[in-house]
Amino acid sequence: MSQFVSLLVLLCSIGVQTSAVSNTKYEPTWDSIDSRPLPGWYDDSKIGIFIHWGLFSVPAFKSEWFWYYWQNNKEDDCVQYMEKNFKPNFTYPEFAPSFTAKHFNPDYWASVFNASGAKYVVLTSKHHEGFTLWPSKTSWNWNAMDVGPKRDLVGELATAIRKTDLRFGLYHSLFEWFNPLFLLDQANNYTTNFYSYGKTVPELYDIVNTYKPEVIWSDGDQGAPDAYWTARDFIAWLYNESPVKDTVVINDRWGDGIMCNHGGFLTCDDRYLPGTLQKRKWENAMTIDKNSWGYVRTSTINDYLTNQEVISTLVKTVSYGGNMLINIGPTAEGTLPPVMEERLRQMGNWLAVNGEAIYNTQPWVYQNDSLTENIYYTEPKTSEIPTVYAILLDWPKSNLINLGSLYGKFKSTQVQFISPDGSLIDLTWYNDVDKKFRINLKPVISDLYGWVLKITNPIIRK
Amino acid sequence: MSQFVSLLVLLCSIGVQTSAVSNTKYEPTWDSIDSRPLPGWYDDSKIGIFIHWGLFSVPAFKSEWFWYYWQNNKEDDCVQYMEKNFKPNFTYPEFAPSFTAKHFNPDYWASVFNASGAKYVVLTSKHHEGFTLWPSKTSWNWNAMDVGPKRDLVGELATAIRKTDLRFGLYHSLFEWFNPLFLLDQANNYTTNFYSYGKTVPELYDIVNTYKPEVIWSDGDQGAPDAYWTARDFIAWLYNESPVKDTVVINDRWGDGIMCNHGGFLTCDDRYLPGTLQKRKWENAMTIDKNSWGYVRTSTINDYLTNQEVISTLVKTVSYGGNMLINIGPTAEGTLPPVMEERLRQMGNWLAVNGEAIYNTQPWVYQNDSLTENIYYTEPKTSEIPTVYAILLDWPKSNLINLGSLYGKFKSTQVQFISPDGSLIDLTWYNDVDKKFRINLKPVISDLYGWVLKITNPIIRK
Amino acid sequence: MSQFVSLLVLLCSIGVQTSAVSNTKYEPTWDSIDSRPLPGWYDDSKIGIFIHWGLFSVPAFKSEWFWYYWQNNKEDDCVQYMEKNFKPNFTYPEFAPSFTAKHFNPDYWASVFNASGAKYVVLTSKHHEGFTLWPSKTSWNWNAMDVGPKRDLVGELATAIRKTDLRFGLYHSLFEWFNPLFLLDQANNYTTNFYSYGKTVPELYDIVNTYKPEVIWSDGDQGAPDAYWTARDFIAWLYNESPVKDTVVINDRWGDGIMCNHGGFLTCDDRYLPGTLQKRKWENAMTIDKNSWGYVRTSTINDYLTNQEVISTLVKTVSYGGNMLINIGPTAEGTLPPVMEERLRQMGNWLAVNGEAIYNTQPWVYQNDSLTENIYYTEPKTSEIPTVYAILLDWPKSNLINLGSLYGKFKSTQVQFISPDGSLIDLTWYNDVDKKFRINLKPVISDLYGWVLKITNPIIRK
Amino acid sequence: MSQFVSLLVLLCSIGVQTSAVSNTKYEPTWDSIDSRPLPGWYDDSKIGIFIHWGLFSVPAFKSEWFWYYWQNNKEDDCVQYMEKNFKPNFTYPEFAPSFTAKHFNPDYWASVFNASGAKYVVLTSKHHEGFTLWPSKTSWNWNAMDVGPKRDLVGELATAIRKTDLRFGLYHSLFEWFNPLFLLDQANNYTTNFYSYGKTVPELYDIVNTYKPEVIWSDGDQGAPDAYWTARDFIAWLYNESPVKDTVVINDRWGDGIMCNHGGFLTCDDRYLPGTLQKRKWENAMTIDKNSWGYVRTSTINDYLTNQEVISTLVKTVSYGGNMLINIGPTAEGTLPPVMEERLRQMGNWLAVNGEAIYNTQPWVYQNDSLTENIYYTEPKTSEIPTVYAILLDWPKSNLINLGSLYGKFKSTQVQFISPDGSLIDLTWYNDVDKKFRINLKPVISDLYGWVLKITNPIIRK
Repeated sequence: MSQFVSLLVLLCSIGVQTSAVSNTKYEPTWDSIDSRPLPGWYDDSKIGIFIHWGLFSVPAFKSEWFWYYWQNNKEDDCVQYMEKNFKPNFTYPEFAPSFTAKHFNPDYWASVFNASGAKYVVLTSKHHEGFTLWPSKTSWNWNAMDVGPKRDLVGELATAIRKTDLRFGLYHSLFEWFNPLFLLDQANNYTTNFYSYGKTVPELYDIVNTYKPEVIWSDGDQGAPDAYWTARDFIAWLYNESPVKDTVVINDRWGDGIMCNHGGFLTCDDRYLPGTLQKRKWENAMTIDKNSWGYVRTSTINDYLTNQEVISTLVKTVSYGGNMLINIGPTAEGTLPPVMEERLRQMGNWLAVNGEAIYNTQPWVYQNDSLTENIYYTEPKTSEIPTVYAILLDWPKSNLINLGSLYGKFKSTQVQFISPDGSLIDLTWYNDVDKKFRINLKPVISDLYGWVLKITNPIIRK
Repeated sequence: MSQFVSLLVLLCSIGVQTSAVSNTKYEPTWDSIDSRPLPGWYDDSKIGIFIHWGLFSVPAFKSEWFWYYWQNNKEDDCVQYMEKNFKPNFTYPEFAPSFTAKHFNPDYWASVFNASGAKYVVLTSKHHEGFTLWPSKTSWNWNAMDVGPKRDLVGELATAIRKTDLRFGLYHSLFEWFNPLFLLDQANNYTTNFYSYGKTVPELYDIVNTYKPEVIWSDGDQGAPDAYWTARDFIAWLYNESPVKDTVVINDRWGDGIMCNHGGFLTCDDRYLPGTLQKRKWENAMTIDKNSWGYVRTSTINDYLTNQEVISTLVKTVSYGGNMLINIGPTAEGTLPPVMEERLRQMGNWLAVNGEAIYNTQPWVYQNDSLTENIYYTEPKTSEIPTVYAILLDWPKSNLINLGSLYGKFKSTQVQFISPDGSLIDLTWYNDVDKKFRINLKPVISDLYGWVLKITNPIIRK
Repeated sequence: MSQFVSLLVLLCSIGVQTSAVSNTKYEPTWDSIDSRPLPGWYDDSKIGIFIHWGLFSVPAFKSEWFWYYWQNNKEDDCVQYMEKNFKPNFTYPEFAPSFTAKHFNPDYWASVFNASGAKYVVLTSKHHEGFTLWPSKTSWNWNAMDVGPKRDLVGELATAIRKTDLRFGLYHSLFEWFNPLFLLDQANNYTTNFYSYGKTVPELYDIVNTYKPEVIWSDGDQGAPDAYWTARDFIAWLYNESPVKDTVVINDRWGDGIMCNHGGFLTCDDRYLPGTLQKRKWENAMTIDKNSWGYVRTSTINDYLTNQEVISTLVKTVSYGGNMLINIGPTAEGTLPPVMEERLRQMGNWLAVNGEAIYNTQPWVYQNDSLTENIYYTEPKTSEIPTVYAILLDWPKSNLINLGSLYGKFKSTQVQFISPDGSLIDLTWYNDVDKKFRINLKPVISDLYGWVLKITNPIIRK
Repeated sequence: MSQFVSLLVLLCSIGVQTSAVSNTKYEPTWDSIDSRPLPGWYDDSKIGIFIHWGLFSVPAFKSEWFWYYWQNNKEDDCVQYMEKNFKPNFTYPEFAPSFTAKHFNPDYWASVFNASGAKYVVLTSKHHEGFTLWPSKTSWNWNAMDVGPKRDLVGELATAIRKTDLRFGLYHSLFEWFNPLFLLDQANNYTTNFYSYGKTVPELYDIVNTYKPEVIWSDGDQGAPDAYWTARDFIAWLYNESPVKDTVVINDRWGDGIMCNHGGFLTCDDRYLPGTLQKRKWENAMTIDKNSWGYVRTSTINDYLTNQEVISTLVKTVSYGGNMLINIGPTAEGTLPPVMEERLRQMGNWLAVNGEAIYNTQPWVYQNDSLTENIYYTEPKTSEIPTVYAILLDWPKSNLINLGSLYGKFKSTQVQFISPDGSLIDLTWYNDVDKKFRINLKPVISDLYGWVLKITNPIIRK
């Protein structure tokens, strides 16, 4: 263990600002770790951008798992793609020179993310392929500074993001599909730590010390116990001593049996969207390309979520108390596929009008209406007068809706439609005899999907 | 001249189905050529797809004129792009191996074009770079069969298009920027024909005989006289003897002074959209990427026309009697950029509802309303009762519009709104005292921009 | 025909110094052409360097006929080489970017050729692949200026060679294996001239006018009649009007039935070495790599001629009245394979000592000795006293040789050994009773193979 | 330390045949290590082949130190080579895909080495660049199996060599120029072992266990203490426990101050050829390309040693008690440059005749003659009658030599010339009055340089 500690001390001392270790409190146990309150900024933010970028962006075929599907699973489409388009014995690392990032403009990316209404960004510092987007000392010639871009992609994006009000976070894969030292540890049933001590642990400390990410989005525990990954030690250090100890949030993928149980916010599954309120804060990581997180060159327009699908997923996620982490896959040249940029800007346009129903809100008593489908509720965390937002994901042909979860109070309850120009349009309502709260909508021609009614002083139906 | 004729005879005899030369009539004079009526299918079609695809799709930088901007104009951005990303002395032809077309699926393309509502397709058989997308005998090692795709891209697309109801056409550039024989002829003030006899003429006959295109979209006369290009001879052959003599349409770019004056339909200029009726049929060739006809990798979402801009251009073009040739730039790998596919499908969705106001129509007495902006008129070529379509490119906040170009006849005139589901919704109207024809609109929530009112039995205001 | 003539006039006028056409005499008939005496420099030179350089130097596999063996013959080794090492559908033109010539130093080449003792150089301006090593206007994007080296390789070498006393010549292939216009003419049984008028003829005139080669080494008539190639017209122009009309020599490969019968010097066959005197001057074109003219990367030392084999071929060739054109195959990077440089320098070292038995000599009465094998004779063209050189290709174990073709004259005949330092060592001789002229050799330790005896005032045995 | 030990145990257990640890004797001290007698095969062998092969064989520019000269020293020629021929920011690892080894035929290599007369082979398993020619688990994606050849080059050559009578050895560089962990240890003044424990040590054990090399040719200690490299521990293991403990020989490059002092045979310097007898066995590592160990594409014939230089170096080296390790640099494609093959075969031809004066010999009383320059002596280790070999590196013009170091005994001493066909030719001698032992040589025409006189029953002059 001394070897490991000295390794950490040295590797990680680079750039560490030893924050005067004030009041170390968290123990390397899940109980202690779970006891830390989630920093408030995270729940208020509601929306983050997820970015899957790496060597897989070069073949851009099938998904970011391409290497594994091709070489491990030997899936037909992948095998044939390689046989048809590359010379025999072409290997995945030989994609690296084509990962040019030549058009990568981090400030432009930041401007798009900002326009999307998202409040934080999570970049794959390293995916399961093991290729690091920053110049890791323990990933020599297998990182974006040594081959391919010859740039510190993590550092450049961090700098650009911090010029905006967004927060910067990092995804990090614990395991690497084909790292021979990982495979050795695995074959040894994780009783050895050649890989975890020699690669994972130093790199985790390195990215925290160097880039000060406020989200650590861990992934790829691959069934190994958290002890193998030294996860609890790392998190305790992160919470007690790291340069981001006060604001960092983490997820829950830290070892066998941990996901959905321990850590910071829960992710549980890809595209996690439980239909009920959860005890702990959770996040719905989803992706605009329905079939892949990394860029896929052959995706056609029907493979991408529509704007309507994005908005409706956001609304549902927030109503049930989650954050939405919406994923994009940039190209190997460093561009954002325009259709992804379009979805982000469409979301941003919607939020510019309707953001008050999303940011800084919390789940209401009811999450969706008891009577009419596709109406979801949120409420502001704080407001002078009782307020609830009803968000319509369908517009009724009749221009009339009936709500079952609340009703009106004479001369007090007010219903307003947030119009596309942001103005509030008063709507008329009445309590019908059959326990329906009826609202007359005034349709407005607009391409903003997802219509928000702001209802003040309602009476909640029991 | 005998040499040239024998060249043609031999080169062109390949694949010629000598259509029993019935009644040869057109002379190689512009008067005779101009006297041919345009085949009716063309005007009825209204919408074609233009495809710019070639080696320029590999650098995909700035525009399809990249080679010229870089090597001839030495424009800074192009020079720097090359200096930064390629080895010194890298030349344009060395892009050819990267023009893989590896994901090119012509049937998928055809399905998208079909879904767009377009009725014909025009592909760049050869752009100014000289690289032919078909295996031209006179463009050895500088065509898509010898290097790059190793496929007959023209032939494959022609086959796929012909499985649909769309018609297939070809763009063809007369000159080639850097062809040394062209430069020699040019230096000789077009008194020699090394290039035109050795390259242009055989290739024009070749593509007609081989692929039987029903549109010949000529370009790049480069100020040379039509005689240099043997344009009149070719067109006379095309009209009298070629396998497409009965249905082919041509444009007007056939030599110095010809454009906008002679030929088939007039193009006059890129993005030609005259604000008045024209004596001859014309076409508005425009492009979804506002800055380029070829694919540009660095274009962001704001560089592309919005769906609203596409629809409004279509409506104006058709109202003034033109066809719209909407251009896309596929990638070097053979994919359609999803944002372009999205615009095409959005146009198709609009046409699926509102196509009756576009296809088989002709300009009405008035092209746009005399009183209210952004309302355009068309009328069916044939209809049992007098009908005019008023197409709204703005929706009035008041839900009321005033028309100045027509008014109603009591108990006869009918105004109907074509709703997104295709049903017709009756609208109320009245003739106001101030010579306004007032219509009460009924807004419908929909993402279909461009609203069509079908007005029957109107009275035209003089 | 006027078209063709104007083509020539224009293409060829570039750079033509119209040499005041003094006394035009040669007619475009073989009789007239054959009547021209060979310029004297050629026979005096005895040794030229042949250089096979082109795109075939990139795969450098099997031979310079690689493309044909692979694509036309589909020979197993070539097909497998491509399948194993390149992506499917890789085509020959895609080798062009790898033809870098990045280390090509023409002055160094010239210095090596000069050191070899050769007196002229013949470079493949274009081999059967059609790729021209100079910027041919009729070979756009298929020449060394447009792709690959981006240098005028012909021009650079010409300039370098002319700084020495060597003469510069050019090899030129009439046909091109896969040129579609050639294949068309061929299919037309050479009744059409799309290829020969459009490519061959202009290029022949172009290289003569531009580079003024003093050897035109024609090849690849491919069974087509000389008329198809316009060979007689070209040669008449070459002899009467061209800038090299006084000094140029040509070979005999100009059309079906011409080789070994008409033209300038005769080549008859590759590695032509007839064992008898010929009526006309001939040339033995042979190559250091026994299996290939172009560079072959897999050749091992046993595939190259030894120094002994080179010297012995030279001696035999000169004894029988021929010139030796010794071939090397430079690499795609422009280097001379060291083993080839070694052979050239070894030959130069031998000639520096023994050159008087080679240069400016002519065949003697006998070409080889009637009694002892592997002894060859030459004699100076002019000398004050009768002289014959006997060149020993074997050294007798006994240090004694017996000559049968001559014998000595008492007090007059002198036999001298040209020692490695150039000094002449007197040898003792006597006429033996059995008609043997016996010479006592004095062995000298040296690595110079091929020992020359200078015999003056011999008596020729009848 | 336990971490390190477990690392070794695990990494090295792969493939270890735990040789029943019989009688462990050597301690990890230099005294103990130095006490081990050199296995006899090594001194008897006299000649080994050194092979420098790696990524540096791809640029093949200047020398195998290219990367360092370019990136660290920024030497002009290297910087310009890269600027001129590669795109900006091209990095050394991007050469890997071009290291194809596509023509690598290990059996052919073995046949050439065998023909050279060498008795062992030493291959660079890893040079200072760090790229391993075998699939090292601790050099992921930076080895010949993962990128480039995709072959176990070490294993394939080992197998081929073992089909002959030659022995197989491995060169191994301790440090790596640019390995960030090495640079970290170096910056820490070698007080940390991130690099040596994580890379060097496991790899050393790995190559011994896997390939069982009988020579470990260590290099690149880079001024670090032997303890940093754990050199003594490794050597003790090698001598006591390794699968090659009985036959392995090592050199002397194991840490600061060790070279030329401790280990197995001494190398002291590149091209080490001391002019006096040494107390310990030594080796002269020299290279056919005078300027480089790795292949250099621009080397011309004058950059290579001549056969005469090779033979004379061999003779001198053996006379003074050394072994000669003659180096070749194969190409990136896996071929042996023919000029190198030629030198090896020329050496083999010489040894086939004169080998008895080299193999199994030892230095004689005198190493070179006291009177005449360029005559070297060896004597057989065992012989029935006293024998000394005098090897002439010059042939006297007079065909007479005078020896000063010995003289003859009437009717007993015999002097014989080993003729090119292997037969012994008796020479006459006499003791001259002036203390010269005179021998009449009988010159024989041959291209075998380096003439051996076998002298039996001489009297040694005191």
